[in-house]
Amino acid sequence: MFIRFITTGGTIDKIYFDDLSQFEVGESQVQHILHEGLVGFDYEVVPLLHKDSLDITQEDRQMLHDHIAADDGDRYVVTHGTDSMAETARALADLEDKVIVLTGALSPARFRSTDAVFNVGMAVAAVQVAGPGVYIAMSGQVFEAGHVRKNRAQNRFESA
Amino acid sequence: MFIRFITTGGTIDKIYFDDLSQFEVGESQVQHILHEGLVGFDYEVVPLLHKDSLDITQEDRQMLHDHIAADDGDRYVVTHGTDSMAETARALADLEDKVIVLTGALSPARFRSTDAVFNVGMAVAAVQVAGPGVYIAMSGQVFEAGHVRKNRAQNRFESA
Amino acid sequence: MFIRFITTGGTIDKIYFDDLSQFEVGESQVQHILHEGLVGFDYEVVPLLHKDSLDITQEDRQMLHDHIAADDGDRYVVTHGTDSMAETARALADLEDKVIVLTGALSPARFRSTDAVFNVGMAVAAVQVAGPGVYIAMSGQVFEAGHVRKNRAQNRFESA
Amino acid sequence: MFIRFITTGGTIDKIYFDDLSQFEVGESQVQHILHEGLVGFDYEVVPLLHKDSLDITQEDRQMLHDHIAADDGDRYVVTHGTDSMAETARALADLEDKVIVLTGALSPARFRSTDAVFNVGMAVAAVQVAGPGVYIAMSGQVFEAGHVRKNRAQNRFESA
Repeated sequence: MFIRFITTGGTIDKIYFDDLSQFEVGESQVQHILHEGLVGFDYEVVPLLHKDSLDITQEDRQMLHDHIAADDGDRYVVTHGTDSMAETARALADLEDKVIVLTGALSPARFRSTDAVFNVGMAVAAVQVAGPGVYIAMSGQVFEAGHVRKNRAQNRFESA
Repeated sequence: MFIRFITTGGTIDKIYFDDLSQFEVGESQVQHILHEGLVGFDYEVVPLLHKDSLDITQEDRQMLHDHIAADDGDRYVVTHGTDSMAETARALADLEDKVIVLTGALSPARFRSTDAVFNVGMAVAAVQVAGPGVYIAMSGQVFEAGHVRKNRAQNRFESA
Repeated sequence: MFIRFITTGGTIDKIYFDDLSQFEVGESQVQHILHEGLVGFDYEVVPLLHKDSLDITQEDRQMLHDHIAADDGDRYVVTHGTDSMAETARALADLEDKVIVLTGALSPARFRSTDAVFNVGMAVAAVQVAGPGVYIAMSGQVFEAGHVRKNRAQNRFESA
Repeated sequence: MFIRFITTGGTIDKIYFDDLSQFEVGESQVQHILHEGLVGFDYEVVPLLHKDSLDITQEDRQMLHDHIAADDGDRYVVTHGTDSMAETARALADLEDKVIVLTGALSPARFRSTDAVFNVGMAVAAVQVAGPGVYIAMSGQVFEAGHVRKNRAQNRFESA
């Protein structure tokens, strides 16, 4: 089995410097999480974007779409900021014959307490078990693209 | 969605006391992992056994089998020691109409670096995406019961 | 032995919410750190301010000064943002007969990797071993007030 | 400032393998802790012994004593198992002109929750602030050799 991980930024990769700096998107935490998860499959991590979820444009989504469409793989895990993850999932929904799972985190992977490790674990299982399609793995659940939204008030993903 | 978690002991729940004590199976870490994973589904954690993998007997496996058979749920995640996890999975394989995923950890959940969180994340995704059957979620992969073994020399699970 | 901890905010207590929020000063992490450090002495945590280091004014420093001057204790650990910690230390330097140690963190205590726990450990040892005076415990060293600065380029404290 | 760290084993460096293995003393965690503590002083880590506290013999203590006596340094932090730490401290008490601080941990440094980082932070501060002598930094306190014991029932160090 081979999984291609595409990272686009978001809270999962946030890093903090000091009082004069802001909290910025740092290098991908996916590699670290897979190492800690003691995974036995082959994979590659492709850092495609490095943006907050709210800064991702339609051009970015098109680039991600075209990148996957042109790629020779079958299974993709895309890490993404949470605020526009559902929108990006919809933009990929016409990619048939591939399994694509988007995930991310509500608190940064570098935190002592974070949902990032759990979420990437979910995405890795979903991308190998689910049939072709686009999914979001967040809040302990695997949702289909187009049937999920982030409830900002509750700070969780839910069916829609 | 409702998931029932059944804990049986194993490395995932190991706890360490001090120089005069040994490393013992402590209370279940599943609740803590689900809390950190910010999961949005309903669940119950049932502590059924409290044993090292190598101490689990055929009677224990029969009890686990009968417990699930008599239970009214559809989806089960069973945490279990790794050394005999594959054997327990086979003992449950005749339970049709239910989705059962066994998981555990090669290093304790209380460790700073552990595969426990990743593995429970995988199990939670697999149990809601996979069709009826018995599976093992370890080493970054979801295996079917009867087609998986622990490679002790490499300290990982692989197809068999 | 009794130690009074006074918290004023800063990176050590930073908390992160989500993409639309900023990284803000949260509740004090000192209590959590002392609990994890398994400390056996009596203490009290006094949350006096809740500010970034750069927002601390001369009025704030005077209030902190007067608070300690009027207090009946002997030993104080003050957690503080790093950018103006040296300035606050100087503002307390005329408080004789008391041992006062300022500390903080270059990365938040909630991070998986942080200097916060190490630094509070240093401050707790310094405040019981050092003679009366005002000190800064950062970057693995215990400096005297007036003889220390933060080297922002190197992101560490050094003698001055 | 230069500090020499001498490691002798103990719970602080305990590592866990899997169900068939025991919990064993692994490589020193001091280097990792100092790195995370962002320390700015020069140091060297000398792995002298690799033993559980209860297995340390009078010959081991004599070797540690002679090693420090013959060494050209002024400041030493010795990591040690907790059950016989007080005894080793007494065995070093005749070493004048040097500052020696023993520390360790009640739960392993590799644990997510551990007193190891806090304790090494305390030892680092004590070894640079205290006058010549032998000390134990545990349970949030800096004790003088000969006036401290481990209370096993309470699992903490206290004055004696």
